[in-house]
Amino acid sequence: MVQGPPADSSGSRFTPLVVLELASDTNQDAIAWLLRRIRDQQQDGGAELLVEQLGPGVDAQEKENPNMFLVGATWQRLLSGAEDVGLFKEFNDGSMRGFTCANKHEFKDYQGDGDSFLSMAECQFIIKHLLDTLRAKQETHVPGHSEVKLYPGKSIIRRLQSKGILVQVFPLHEKEELKQLSFSWYGKVKLSLQPLDDIRHYYGEGQALYFGFLEYFTFALVPMALIGVPYYLFDWEDYDKYVVFAAFNLVWCTVILELWKRCSASMAYRWGTLSRKKAFEEPRPGFHGVLGFNPVTGREEPLYPHAKRLLRIYLVSLPFVLLCLYLSLYVMMIYFQMEGWALSVHDQEPSFWTGVLLFIPSIIYAVVIEAMNLIYRYAAEFLTEWENHRLESSYQNHLVLKVLVFNFFNCFASLFYIAFVMQDMVLLRQSLATLLITSQILNQFMEAFLPYWLQRRRNKKMMRKVQKRRTRTLEDRELPLAEQVRLEADMSTYLGTFDDYLELFLLFGYVSLFSCVYPLAAVLVVLNNVTEVYSDAFKMCRVFKRPFSDPAANIGVWQLAFEAMSVIAVVTNCSLIGMSPQVKAYFPDSESQLILWTVAIEHALLAFKFILSYLIPDVPKPIQISLARLEFESLEALKKKKMLEASEPSEPVQ
Amino acid sequence: MVQGPPADSSGSRFTPLVVLELASDTNQDAIAWLLRRIRDQQQDGGAELLVEQLGPGVDAQEKENPNMFLVGATWQRLLSGAEDVGLFKEFNDGSMRGFTCANKHEFKDYQGDGDSFLSMAECQFIIKHLLDTLRAKQETHVPGHSEVKLYPGKSIIRRLQSKGILVQVFPLHEKEELKQLSFSWYGKVKLSLQPLDDIRHYYGEGQALYFGFLEYFTFALVPMALIGVPYYLFDWEDYDKYVVFAAFNLVWCTVILELWKRCSASMAYRWGTLSRKKAFEEPRPGFHGVLGFNPVTGREEPLYPHAKRLLRIYLVSLPFVLLCLYLSLYVMMIYFQMEGWALSVHDQEPSFWTGVLLFIPSIIYAVVIEAMNLIYRYAAEFLTEWENHRLESSYQNHLVLKVLVFNFFNCFASLFYIAFVMQDMVLLRQSLATLLITSQILNQFMEAFLPYWLQRRRNKKMMRKVQKRRTRTLEDRELPLAEQVRLEADMSTYLGTFDDYLELFLLFGYVSLFSCVYPLAAVLVVLNNVTEVYSDAFKMCRVFKRPFSDPAANIGVWQLAFEAMSVIAVVTNCSLIGMSPQVKAYFPDSESQLILWTVAIEHALLAFKFILSYLIPDVPKPIQISLARLEFESLEALKKKKMLEASEPSEPVQ
Repeated sequence: MVQGPPADSSGSRFTPLVVLELASDTNQDAIAWLLRRIRDQQQDGGAELLVEQLGPGVDAQEKENPNMFLVGATWQRLLSGAEDVGLFKEFNDGSMRGFTCANKHEFKDYQGDGDSFLSMAECQFIIKHLLDTLRAKQETHVPGHSEVKLYPGKSIIRRLQSKGILVQVFPLHEKEELKQLSFSWYGKVKLSLQPLDDIRHYYGEGQALYFGFLEYFTFALVPMALIGVPYYLFDWEDYDKYVVFAAFNLVWCTVILELWKRCSASMAYRWGTLSRKKAFEEPRPGFHGVLGFNPVTGREEPLYPHAKRLLRIYLVSLPFVLLCLYLSLYVMMIYFQMEGWALSVHDQEPSFWTGVLLFIPSIIYAVVIEAMNLIYRYAAEFLTEWENHRLESSYQNHLVLKVLVFNFFNCFASLFYIAFVMQDMVLLRQSLATLLITSQILNQFMEAFLPYWLQRRRNKKMMRKVQKRRTRTLEDRELPLAEQVRLEADMSTYLGTFDDYLELFLLFGYVSLFSCVYPLAAVLVVLNNVTEVYSDAFKMCRVFKRPFSDPAANIGVWQLAFEAMSVIAVVTNCSLIGMSPQVKAYFPDSESQLILWTVAIEHALLAFKFILSYLIPDVPKPIQISLARLEFESLEALKKKKMLEASEPSEPVQ
Repeated sequence: MVQGPPADSSGSRFTPLVVLELASDTNQDAIAWLLRRIRDQQQDGGAELLVEQLGPGVDAQEKENPNMFLVGATWQRLLSGAEDVGLFKEFNDGSMRGFTCANKHEFKDYQGDGDSFLSMAECQFIIKHLLDTLRAKQETHVPGHSEVKLYPGKSIIRRLQSKGILVQVFPLHEKEELKQLSFSWYGKVKLSLQPLDDIRHYYGEGQALYFGFLEYFTFALVPMALIGVPYYLFDWEDYDKYVVFAAFNLVWCTVILELWKRCSASMAYRWGTLSRKKAFEEPRPGFHGVLGFNPVTGREEPLYPHAKRLLRIYLVSLPFVLLCLYLSLYVMMIYFQMEGWALSVHDQEPSFWTGVLLFIPSIIYAVVIEAMNLIYRYAAEFLTEWENHRLESSYQNHLVLKVLVFNFFNCFASLFYIAFVMQDMVLLRQSLATLLITSQILNQFMEAFLPYWLQRRRNKKMMRKVQKRRTRTLEDRELPLAEQVRLEADMSTYLGTFDDYLELFLLFGYVSLFSCVYPLAAVLVVLNNVTEVYSDAFKMCRVFKRPFSDPAANIGVWQLAFEAMSVIAVVTNCSLIGMSPQVKAYFPDSESQLILWTVAIEHALLAFKFILSYLIPDVPKPIQISLARLEFESLEALKKKKMLEASEPSEPVQ
């Protein structure tokens, strides 16, 4: 196991891994009960973890929350927990297998108890799982909090969380490892690949897959950027020559997504999440309903009728989304009026300033779009929460769908309108450039610099506080544990990869849909992605609390979203090609002939795309073979065991 | 177990289930060796089955093959085999679970040894599996046949089969059950649903799913047929009014396929094949290659380089298919010339006979199409065999793809040409009607009546032979076992559901693509399907050898084929609507406006179709819940077992 910070004066006798923060007004009975349940033996229904109150800070102020608890576990408990969560570790023969305590010695890095077999992130994930599955027994409510109802089998932590008694649970950073990681990630001056395996080691598979995707996407854009530069330089004023570029676009966006699936499968296989089975999902913390019997588990738990949820979705959420889309359309129309006004001013008396004025409406519109996306995002979260989904995955799917539809419409509606209704390629190019650049600047600012600035202020304050009290040796720049924990507790919470993926999705849209009229788009996106790697890495390491790792096997619903976008890209690029003067010249007499040909080619391309996605296997051949071999071996082992049992029925186990 | 035919003078002391027929010139050493291997104990690598030579027939002629063997098994062996093949049976609580000998008493119909717990079809399937997995040990070749090479782990039966020493393996019919089944299936005069559960009981899940699909498809066509009749009666000469019908078509073909998936999942769940895991597939009998090590199992077996197979596919098979398509196109052009000639004759001197002459080219063309399909079918089988696929499933996929592409093109190319190039709706209607009716008549004849007639001749001959020898009591109309077996061995072999599905696929094509111009098509197809049920049932019961059951969970690659057809149907129907004079009237000035609108609506419909197929769950909710419950229970049981083992490590098993 990774060495935790050394035991200090506050007297912790175990490596603290996870922090529980309870509300400062929590009843003492409740705290005592919770700690007992966490410490209890597994046979008695406890989590069998180590837990201890965090000592007071350096300047034990009144306003400091005393109810902070450090959670750790014995080595033995971590190993049995690893088996419970179905952790995959590297086996002797190099394959990844589900860890079991019975054959722990056959795993590659297992050298004895207490070594670095389990990474700190894995230990924290295990502890989180053990806390989450700590269930109420016969308690009807939390002692001292009669309003917090419980029933047998309910997850205690989730109930405390949804009732606000448990403020937060978060894993601790590991200063030394983090320093090394951040150096190899963004500290070095020379450009290099990201240390994806280290990222996975520290943050888990979900994060690593996001950064892997970001890197892959950036590399995939390089050929486009390379073609885009000469296009931009030599054909700047020749709007007709985009046919080749659009055709390239078409093929490109299909191919890269297919290859990503294989790439992602390779990574997930290396990290052991590809063949890992999903555990049964617990209900979300906020899920509520009438107590009944779960038809699957037979346990008593709240049920919420599906029909009622459907009513909420179709009678409230859907109309709301449509209304927002209408609003977005309305804003777009205002933008076009502004645009027309600016153009008329520029046409009357052209000067440098009126030339600048031409860009103003687009910039304002870009800012408004970002603001609307942000506000809508909150509304969508609220609505999806209110729809009361039982599972986190179903909640996520509905949220992603809502947000994607609106963001797509909001960002691209004006471009589609300019391209296909106004058919004004000059305006399209200008609008695209302004939208892209403005949104990139805004995003980078909102996402990294603002939180960083806030965090630096907090950091400095804490440092000053500590130095006020003890001015010991100068080398001892590290904060004592109690301050470190409180500092991390105050850091912003990382809300998952949703916004990061969403940003990439929109960038992918700009490039795949319209980059043929503005070839520099790919260049801009590549530049943005490179800085994005650095700013995302920076914010993960320095700005946010450490997130719990998430054993993802792929990028989930985003794969689908990107594929949908690539289908739309085929349609859009075909239409752009059909509208180009170059192609029109081939059909001087008959417009309908032109349209029919365009449609026919588009259908053929779409058919080809679907056939391609069937033909290219999602998992590379060597990995398919490895997985099949593992399955075969486990089947053979099972057969052998059965035959042994049949022939010697009274032999003791093992 | 179902009672087999009573032991007769030939002296069989067990219920014969499966017949092995070896070539009449097989070496006696080889026979003795094979029988020993089949009878050997499992521990010694045998199949542990009962096997006995079939006694001579009534008139032991010279030309009769003496190498017929009856295979059976003890009750104990069948149960352990049921566990090996992963048979699902109904559990006490009504759910379907994988059978294990350990908890056999908890299964619903298990009342003790020798009862009807396993159906005869299941017993036969188990025996087939046990024979197929009978593997060579240290033998380098079959004794007495040094040309039939063996290596450790090679399936003996498959090698014998591919070398022609084993002529056939087939399961025996069960006269009494068959009589009852055929009565409830097609013997009753009144119309009723097919006894799908009985069909599954006698023939297995694959067959039952085909008949279930046939029935479902027929019912799905009824609304179309009902709408089609008044359309046909009142709008016969009004070719313009097909818009509503085409729109209905569009929705219909999407909806029925989605609903079929749910319907099929329900059936497969009831029969226990839905959650059954696929066993490891053995290489096909005809697969050959250089001996090497299988990367999955690590066993020595022939390997064939994938690159070589790809070369064969892309350099030989693909050009051949393209050539065939070109040929089909050429024949089509000849048809159009004939059509033009007939029309010119009719126009010069119209009479009744020239009116009849108008239909002659279509009829000839329809016959030629059927003949080409048949010939191509054999060529495709030969080519796919030559591509040397390792797995039966891969072979099937390549064969289906080849045959589908050609049949689709061959049957529909002329219709597409008439509809979209010639734009002649009268000819389209006439051509469609002729094609449909001619192919139906041909099919029914080739498929059922011809084989039946042949079989009846054989049956009568056998009966005469038997009656020549013994003219005993008149009631004893049943043949003795030896004759019965020989009679069945001479019956035609049922080659699987391929041709049946292919026929339905083409019918589905006629209806979904063009029925809006010929509304009677649906009526004709319904009529055809009703007779198809009877003729298929009849041929299964009376004409063919009993096939081994096939534990299918769905209709496999055909689902995909039908869905592809329904996508093409959306495109076709949209185009037909766009071409209709009714719709054209809305766009009097601009043809390109009309085309753009048609394309836009078509895209929207396609998008809607894909969204719909995501939204409608493939498995009905109650079945999803049942499956989840089963999985949950097995996980819980595993957890409990582990905890027990951990707390009491030295307790004996069970």
